[in-house]
Amino acid sequence: MKVVIVGGVAGGATAAARIRRLNEQAEIVVFERSGYISYANCGLPYYIGDVITDRSDLTLQTPESFFSRFRVNMNVRHEVTAIHPEEKTVSVKNLETGEEFEESYDKLILSPGAKPTQPRLPGVGLDKLFTLRTVEDTFHIKDYINANHPKSAVLAGGGFIGLELAENLRELGMDVIIVQRPKQLMNPFDADMASFIHNEMRKHGVKLALGHTVEGFEERDGGVDVLLKDEQPLHADMVILAIGVSPETTLAKDAGLELGIKGSIVVNDRMETSISDIYAVGDAVQVKHFVTGQDALISLAGPANKQGRIAADNICGGDSHYTGSQGSSVIKIFGMTAATTGVNETNARKTGLDVDTVILSPMSHAGYYPGGKVMTMKVVFEKATYRLLGAQIVGYEGVDKRIDVLATAIRAGMKATELKDLDLAYAPPYSSAKDPVNMAGFMVENIANGVLKQWHLEDADRLPRDGSITLLDTRTVEEFAHGHIDGFFNIPVDELRERLGELDKRKPVYVICQSGLRSYIACRILAGNGFDCYNFSGGFRFYDAVTN
Amino acid sequence: MKVVIVGGVAGGATAAARIRRLNEQAEIVVFERSGYISYANCGLPYYIGDVITDRSDLTLQTPESFFSRFRVNMNVRHEVTAIHPEEKTVSVKNLETGEEFEESYDKLILSPGAKPTQPRLPGVGLDKLFTLRTVEDTFHIKDYINANHPKSAVLAGGGFIGLELAENLRELGMDVIIVQRPKQLMNPFDADMASFIHNEMRKHGVKLALGHTVEGFEERDGGVDVLLKDEQPLHADMVILAIGVSPETTLAKDAGLELGIKGSIVVNDRMETSISDIYAVGDAVQVKHFVTGQDALISLAGPANKQGRIAADNICGGDSHYTGSQGSSVIKIFGMTAATTGVNETNARKTGLDVDTVILSPMSHAGYYPGGKVMTMKVVFEKATYRLLGAQIVGYEGVDKRIDVLATAIRAGMKATELKDLDLAYAPPYSSAKDPVNMAGFMVENIANGVLKQWHLEDADRLPRDGSITLLDTRTVEEFAHGHIDGFFNIPVDELRERLGELDKRKPVYVICQSGLRSYIACRILAGNGFDCYNFSGGFRFYDAVTN
Ligand SMILES: Cc1cc2nc3c(=O)[nH]c(=O)nc-3n(C[C@H](O)[C@H](O)[C@H](O)COP(=O)(O)OP(=O)(O)OC[C@H]3O[C@@H](n4cnc5c(N)ncnc54)[C@H](O)[C@@H]3O)c2cc1C
Ligand SMILES: Cc1cc2nc3c(=O)[nH]c(=O)nc-3n(C[C@H](O)[C@H](O)[C@H](O)COP(=O)(O)OP(=O)(O)OC[C@H]3O[C@@H](n4cnc5c(N)ncnc54)[C@H](O)[C@@H]3O)c2cc1C
Ligand SMILES: CC(C)(COP(=O)(O)OP(=O)(O)OC[C@H]1O[C@@H](n2cnc3c(N)ncnc32)[C@H](O)[C@@H]1OP(=O)(O)O)[C@@H](O)C(=O)NCCC(=O)NCCS
Ligand SMILES: CC(C)(COP(=O)(O)OP(=O)(O)OC[C@H]1O[C@@H](n2cnc3c(N)ncnc32)[C@H](O)[C@@H]1OP(=O)(O)O)[C@@H](O)C(=O)NCCC(=O)NCCS
Repeated sequence: MKVVIVGGVAGGATAAARIRRLNEQAEIVVFERSGYISYANCGLPYYIGDVITDRSDLTLQTPESFFSRFRVNMNVRHEVTAIHPEEKTVSVKNLETGEEFEESYDKLILSPGAKPTQPRLPGVGLDKLFTLRTVEDTFHIKDYINANHPKSAVLAGGGFIGLELAENLRELGMDVIIVQRPKQLMNPFDADMASFIHNEMRKHGVKLALGHTVEGFEERDGGVDVLLKDEQPLHADMVILAIGVSPETTLAKDAGLELGIKGSIVVNDRMETSISDIYAVGDAVQVKHFVTGQDALISLAGPANKQGRIAADNICGGDSHYTGSQGSSVIKIFGMTAATTGVNETNARKTGLDVDTVILSPMSHAGYYPGGKVMTMKVVFEKATYRLLGAQIVGYEGVDKRIDVLATAIRAGMKATELKDLDLAYAPPYSSAKDPVNMAGFMVENIANGVLKQWHLEDADRLPRDGSITLLDTRTVEEFAHGHIDGFFNIPVDELRERLGELDKRKPVYVICQSGLRSYIACRILAGNGFDCYNFSGGFRFYDAVTN
Repeated sequence: MKVVIVGGVAGGATAAARIRRLNEQAEIVVFERSGYISYANCGLPYYIGDVITDRSDLTLQTPESFFSRFRVNMNVRHEVTAIHPEEKTVSVKNLETGEEFEESYDKLILSPGAKPTQPRLPGVGLDKLFTLRTVEDTFHIKDYINANHPKSAVLAGGGFIGLELAENLRELGMDVIIVQRPKQLMNPFDADMASFIHNEMRKHGVKLALGHTVEGFEERDGGVDVLLKDEQPLHADMVILAIGVSPETTLAKDAGLELGIKGSIVVNDRMETSISDIYAVGDAVQVKHFVTGQDALISLAGPANKQGRIAADNICGGDSHYTGSQGSSVIKIFGMTAATTGVNETNARKTGLDVDTVILSPMSHAGYYPGGKVMTMKVVFEKATYRLLGAQIVGYEGVDKRIDVLATAIRAGMKATELKDLDLAYAPPYSSAKDPVNMAGFMVENIANGVLKQWHLEDADRLPRDGSITLLDTRTVEEFAHGHIDGFFNIPVDELRERLGELDKRKPVYVICQSGLRSYIACRILAGNGFDCYNFSGGFRFYDAVTN
């Protein structure tokens, strides 16, 4: 059996290694357009920021080491230029020599990845405009910085790569502006949760130009003007375009493979394309979203690695299935960690799901043990069934842990109410006896039982201020004096029972406190005294972070 | 409704707060024998070690704050001395005044916890012998240390509390010896995994006297002699007994409640005891082990808190069920973290389960990003069904995360093979594209498919050295020279294909490398060339840590 693989990185190299482990006799040939295989795409921004300083750390394998361990012919600087499914061959161009040749295959795996989306704008192509995808791109940027000592950069695009680059350039001492059309960074997050990311970025001196449309680029004064619609241009010494990625689609399209979203390759759950003996994996393929069941593009390394292994299994006579991606991801934003899994509220609603959420601010570990940090957690679930749909967390410690627990619960098809039962490991340096994930479960159960009724951020402005309802803030007098929502009046929770007479039982009460806990207790006191009562989801802490 | 609660800490205080939230009218009376409520048992060792320095941090609530928030009468220094189920009263003694009185209840919750097991040995009761359970115990130990500046301590008992105390006393600069009868510390861990804990303890200067039986205590030279069977006594300036805990059982026994293991209180999954209107929760009760289904004692704060909330729900007319404990726990051991969930291999076998395990040494996060640390992970599963039964992890970073993911997977009833499908969040500072938990899943799947056959630590000595089988070490020449198992010979994995002629195809090959990965690859090369091949589970790294 002869297997040809296009692309020698996350999906491709994993598939090659796995095929060899399953079949010592197969001939395995990999073509990789760039000069490197098995490189750590995800580490590239950190090389630019001098966090990773050794070039060799960027590649997990070399063609030589791969050959000696796996007997795989890793051909770098070789581009596959066409697939001929009838002949079962590919056309290959040696980029060093210019030589072109045909290579036959019994099985073909496509793992060509995705390329940085290039906007069709005037000035794209200027030599101070960069993109980041390969090791070569990385050295190109790094060499430019070392040679020219740019003092400022504009990052077009506020997704994972844009933010990681922003952080790394900032750590090098540069002035950094992120510009993009959406009004928020990181669209896997709901706008409210993204506010915390904005705050952290700004705290570290990154300027955000959100809601701006880039219209082009012009060289000026040895730097670049980034032209904006209806705004003054932004000027910087260099620009990096990171407005997203698009599947590498040309090969597949020309070969007549069935294509999906954005020209991605359609595959079944065995990673088989529409043409027999051709498999495809990684950023180039369309996947089923595990939570919504809809077609999706999810460009992440975990899925690419898993899919590569699955394609290998099936090529070697196995029967492995990819069960879908749920978009679990995490990013370091200076000192902060932001992570998400499943669907966010916005996307859930877009797909027609009727959802509810809880928002809480638990400590990363027991408050009495030094070093604990507050995190903000939002859990999304289906209203009718309580099926767990997604979660987002931002914070400084223990964020990646809770997102992985929630990701596992989603994968297991758990209900959000079942989170309360999870038996998680507790000692003071690591968690609380009621882990943040359990706590979310308690809150959802309270909703299910009618013990907790909520009001949300979007209600804050539209609640009537005409006296028809009671707007109550149950924090201390000092906290209230320090800042509160207009129209609210203050009774600290611990005085509430004595001061019930100040409230009118016929009016529904909308309560807020700092995190949501004291206002929940206030709601329970009020409900026990015959009031109809609603708790503000997230607390003033959340309101303040999102609105200010 | 009047609810009386015995014990005002993890289970009791949680129940009290929850009852109030569900019922504003209930009369709630708590009796707590010690002088404090809502104290952080789990933080007490860290107060002794000056990690927690503020006394007030040890109590999450005071009777006053609890009353003003929850209108619960928290009676500290009040001991419940008897229960009269027919009259529905309890006898109470005010420990300040000596006064005794009866208190009636409609519902009674017992959350008296567990007490340090006191061995019946000569010298128990000496004033330089301490135990640790309450805030008072903590101040007692701390005051003794502050006044007498002891230079050395013997800790009798090597469980959670013993180890936390050992660390904290060591951090104060004391010489610390842990002595206990079992040959290993921390029996929730298998002996092999416990070795890593021993190593860390010793690295930090804690002496271990394992496999020694304490026979008594004698005052000598202003300190204490700890008398050992067949050994010289150990001498120290103070001794702490932490040989385990036993349920507080006297009240329940005298009241005629059905008792289980070690006199613990038998409850159903609604936390109801055998006598109506009496509930019991926390360390005092017998639970169902979630994994084995057997009766068990699991003295941990998470279960106590959950059970308190469940009892409260049921008392307030709800229908909440405790779904069992799985013993998820974690401990900081100086720089190391050790964590476990479910059953270990030893206990699984004891309960008659036919189990297999995988042992791996993944990095806490991508190797190319600074700061990653190797962890050792052992995953236990049922042989026939691949049901995930338990896991143990020791390491320096990311241990608590993986144990909680595995705990969640166990709770969801996942198979160990399904771990490969978990969609976990990856970025270089947090994980690898193949997360350690996924990696365990790959390995188990390989066992399921016959791609991986293993040999284990217990085989190391009994494998014949008579030439009937091949014993192969596939590390580099340098690694091999540095230390290897007797009887093994060396062919580095990357030379194996050329040197196959040195091996006899008719003989099974037992292979080892450093972590298990290269020997697995070697096994696949050998299997592909017609050999019958077995991979050493855990690698030489594991062998070395356990045996040396
Ligand atoms: C800067 C950066 C940071 C990232 N950070 C993260 C992160 O933190 N977490 C995460 O989960 N994911 C991250 N990703 C995404 C992750 O790297 C990808 O999801 C993953 O690498 C996709 O694997 P793949 O095999 O599909 O494609 P790739 O790994 O991109 O490999 C595709 C390879 O195919 C080659 N190729 C393309 N066409 C041809 C052709 N015609 N002939 C020959 N070779 C060809 C390309 O040169 C490329 O090397 C990051 C990506 C980048 C660029
Ligand atoms: C030093 C230490 C460290 C620990 N570390 C951890 C850890 O890291 N992680 C973890 O999960 N667990 C830990 N635990 C265990 C955890 O604290 C217990 O599992 C939990 O507190 C049990 O809750 P409970 O309500 O059953 O008992 P407790 O919290 O012990 O409360 C019982 C209370 O009842 C009172 N009482 C008993 N009898 C009577 C009576 N007759 N009348 C009136 N009052 C009475 C006692 O004085 C006691 O205050 C630790 C325990 C200790 C002592
Ligand atoms: C380097 C690369 C080729 C490695 O691929 P790989 O060999 O499949 O992966 P690993 O080295 O992690 O090894 C995993 C294998 O070892 C096995 N394994 C791991 N530890 C083991 C142990 N202790 N004992 C036995 N087997 C073990 C696993 O089961 C798995 O084998 P399988 O797939 O046959 O089941 C590939 O991951 C790569 O190119 N990565 C870089 C690109 C990339 O992923 N970029 C995006 C992220 S930055
Ligand atoms: C202090 C103590 C009385 C608190 O009990 P508690 O009030 O039940 O617990 P918390 O303060 O964590 O609050 C949890 C409640 O707040 C709710 N909550 C938390 N955050 C919320 C938010 N943002 N919005 C709304 N509700 C929220 C939860 O749903 C839960 O309420 P419920 O049980 O009615 O569902 C009790 O935990 C205790 O005594 N602890 C110390 C003893 C101990 O546990 N020791 C062992 C470990 S060291």
